[in-house]
Amino acid sequence: MDKKLTHIDSAGNPRMVDVSEKEVTSRYARASGKVIFPSEIFNDLQQQDFLSKKGSVIQTAVIAGIQAVKKTSDIIPLCHPLKLSKIGIEIEPGNDCLEISCEVKCSERTGVEMEALTGVSAAALTIYDMTKALSHEIVISDIQLEKKTGGKKDYGN
Amino acid sequence: MDKKLTHIDSAGNPRMVDVSEKEVTSRYARASGKVIFPSEIFNDLQQQDFLSKKGSVIQTAVIAGIQAVKKTSDIIPLCHPLKLSKIGIEIEPGNDCLEISCEVKCSERTGVEMEALTGVSAAALTIYDMTKALSHEIVISDIQLEKKTGGKKDYGN
Amino acid sequence: MDKKLTHIDSAGNPRMVDVSEKEVTSRYARASGKVIFPSEIFNDLQQQDFLSKKGSVIQTAVIAGIQAVKKTSDIIPLCHPLKLSKIGIEIEPGNDCLEISCEVKCSERTGVEMEALTGVSAAALTIYDMTKALSHEIVISDIQLEKKTGGKKDYGN
Amino acid sequence: MDKKLTHIDSAGNPRMVDVSEKEVTSRYARASGKVIFPSEIFNDLQQQDFLSKKGSVIQTAVIAGIQAVKKTSDIIPLCHPLKLSKIGIEIEPGNDCLEISCEVKCSERTGVEMEALTGVSAAALTIYDMTKALSHEIVISDIQLEKKTGGKKDYGN
Amino acid sequence: MDKKLTHIDSAGNPRMVDVSEKEVTSRYARASGKVIFPSEIFNDLQQQDFLSKKGSVIQTAVIAGIQAVKKTSDIIPLCHPLKLSKIGIEIEPGNDCLEISCEVKCSERTGVEMEALTGVSAAALTIYDMTKALSHEIVISDIQLEKKTGGKKDYGN
Amino acid sequence: MDKKLTHIDSAGNPRMVDVSEKEVTSRYARASGKVIFPSEIFNDLQQQDFLSKKGSVIQTAVIAGIQAVKKTSDIIPLCHPLKLSKIGIEIEPGNDCLEISCEVKCSERTGVEMEALTGVSAAALTIYDMTKALSHEIVISDIQLEKKTGGKKDYGN
Repeated sequence: MDKKLTHIDSAGNPRMVDVSEKEVTSRYARASGKVIFPSEIFNDLQQQDFLSKKGSVIQTAVIAGIQAVKKTSDIIPLCHPLKLSKIGIEIEPGNDCLEISCEVKCSERTGVEMEALTGVSAAALTIYDMTKALSHEIVISDIQLEKKTGGKKDYGN
Repeated sequence: MDKKLTHIDSAGNPRMVDVSEKEVTSRYARASGKVIFPSEIFNDLQQQDFLSKKGSVIQTAVIAGIQAVKKTSDIIPLCHPLKLSKIGIEIEPGNDCLEISCEVKCSERTGVEMEALTGVSAAALTIYDMTKALSHEIVISDIQLEKKTGGKKDYGN
Repeated sequence: MDKKLTHIDSAGNPRMVDVSEKEVTSRYARASGKVIFPSEIFNDLQQQDFLSKKGSVIQTAVIAGIQAVKKTSDIIPLCHPLKLSKIGIEIEPGNDCLEISCEVKCSERTGVEMEALTGVSAAALTIYDMTKALSHEIVISDIQLEKKTGGKKDYGN
Repeated sequence: MDKKLTHIDSAGNPRMVDVSEKEVTSRYARASGKVIFPSEIFNDLQQQDFLSKKGSVIQTAVIAGIQAVKKTSDIIPLCHPLKLSKIGIEIEPGNDCLEISCEVKCSERTGVEMEALTGVSAAALTIYDMTKALSHEIVISDIQLEKKTGGKKDYGN
Repeated sequence: MDKKLTHIDSAGNPRMVDVSEKEVTSRYARASGKVIFPSEIFNDLQQQDFLSKKGSVIQTAVIAGIQAVKKTSDIIPLCHPLKLSKIGIEIEPGNDCLEISCEVKCSERTGVEMEALTGVSAAALTIYDMTKALSHEIVISDIQLEKKTGGKKDYGN
Repeated sequence: MDKKLTHIDSAGNPRMVDVSEKEVTSRYARASGKVIFPSEIFNDLQQQDFLSKKGSVIQTAVIAGIQAVKKTSDIIPLCHPLKLSKIGIEIEPGNDCLEISCEVKCSERTGVEMEALTGVSAAALTIYDMTKALSHEIVISDIQLEKKTGGKKDYGN
């Protein structure tokens, strides 16, 4: 039952959670997602080492993802502004897709799941932007949390 | 063949496309995506009118999406900064999911697909943030272009 | 009757107004406001030429106001991002207060009232910040539109 | 005498206060302000539950206020960038006005008065933007500090 | 004599130039600069293809430069916010240095010199950041305008 | 040999250094740079007390520098977002140039060299912007680190 939504403000007004009484701990989160291409397009991209007319798809997406992680509390209204001690983005070719993984570390009073998910999203959008001249059928999918540690309950592996 | 990647800079350095010779036209794009919940969680949310402890899930996500559309060229490195004449976000309950749609209009030398996709992504991340206390199994998926008009070639309907 | 709120979206979801069918015209707006000090504090400030320990109160506030005008569509969720052709901030001593005036010009499809009001607000907050070591009784007040031209109806003089 | 402006840099150049020797303490500030409407307009708004054509006035303003608190050190030149542990905005109907209250908490070397005042200002500007189609006579007023604790001297209640 | 500073506001308050009466024209500017390394360090970098522990020095700097061009009016207080139609950054090895060139195009009422100079500066800072573990003797130098066209007077070649 | 670039990721993908295991210490950095003018222009500027048509060159540049220091991790992709406890910018006339110095303090897991260098760069760009109507021959030069303390190895004096 502890997963039910409780104590809902009757007016439904947005509220940032008060974390001032929580302890500062080492927090870690990893999220993943993918950008799926039509088969023919993916093969072309792979043969060209994921270089598009606009430059290196993967390097540009990695940087965009890292930068977006730092903007998380600006993009998501109720996120707390945090200091971060590590941001890492990996992008690997999969089955007709590019697979993105983002991990974030900090020493704070709240977790960094949203930071990791935001990094994946921005990297995915950038991959889309670098390749969209090739197809209108590209899809960003399966953005999800893989692991988190340091909060009340760990998750994933 | 015109869809192949041509004229790739051999160094692969990132480059913003030069649109200065393109005509200013009325541009429109619509993108969609969804946030998928475990069934039980979705039912709870629906019974509570999508009000979470942090406030109205849908209204907060709509505003986050609108705000993010305006930040597109800051989030995606090679996007041009544009003036926008309309941004609209719709969020509707679907089958164990919330379905997001974002449409963007402008009068510019380049299209607004990335703006529409960024609006969907930020709305999805915000829905995730407002409900993540309920489950670690939420997934953001199927972010894609639905329609674009005003460029060289129209797409979708 | 045309001033009544009509066509309200039943869900009340936030929407940016579609201005794509409006004509581009020369727009102008001027807003004003003031920062009111306890008499004794104001006299001290005036004798010191409005120099505080943190530097020139007026010059710092003028710059903060100009910078904030450019951030209007980032601060106010449903404002359109606009190009601006002029931003001017004037700050003059009044009766136990500093009086702020901000004017903004552009050539756009929508007006710049919110830009002018945002410039006044940021200048006022900066004046407060530069002088807050002197008193907790400072008040920001009377922020309002003075004049607008270029839209459907002109206002003020 | 300790309230006098002392040690003024003769050139009046802007300076950020050095807080590196101050202790990290729990800081709290609450500020308030109001948006005053012509009587008839206020009655209309109240009858429509503060829903305007652009959406829910109050929810949109709450989110704008929360977001702006996080941008305080970007809007006000000499403010320090801080981590925040709580941001709360309340908006209630008053006498022909909407009354705004913003409280902010952090664990830092300097206080959060400016953050609370910035939250009130941005919420007020957003209320203005959501309702400005109804009247040019709306006024933002009485933005002031209500309470602060955690610094050298507490204030208010 | 027309190059003398005239019409100085006696208070010296910062003012954004009013460009509303200027014509919209095609504007172009190119700026350059360099990052100078101790000889031994530069040789090491060159042998490693300008890959540092933090990744590709050149690609990261190109992206940082492009992104910063878009932030020019946020970084420089009296710059007008503009739409841009092209941003290009080139970085080439020189004599114990990396040489940066940035070109910017727009169709606006004012020029883009500051945008080009800001792009060079951010690319230079990023090169410094990617290599600073190797030496404290790196110097950013010779940031200057190379060419501008489209304004009252053309410059450079 | 410990200055050689080691452990280079073979793909050269950008990576933010993981500082989570480093200790929080008091960090300090000071950087310098200059803006060099044609002699005649510099004399004019000096006679006019560095007031240009756009306002006080020095005060505007000081504020721009302080603001940019706070944006360092947004401008430079692989910089960590930090809290800062002091930012100071000094600008003094030199030999046909304005000399800029920026010092930054924090209590963090990583140093603030890039913050100090970014403050110098933004102040230099702003000086350029305030005076560029006078000459196209202005040059920003000699941006370098002067001193750092608090990390593994101190530097400078």
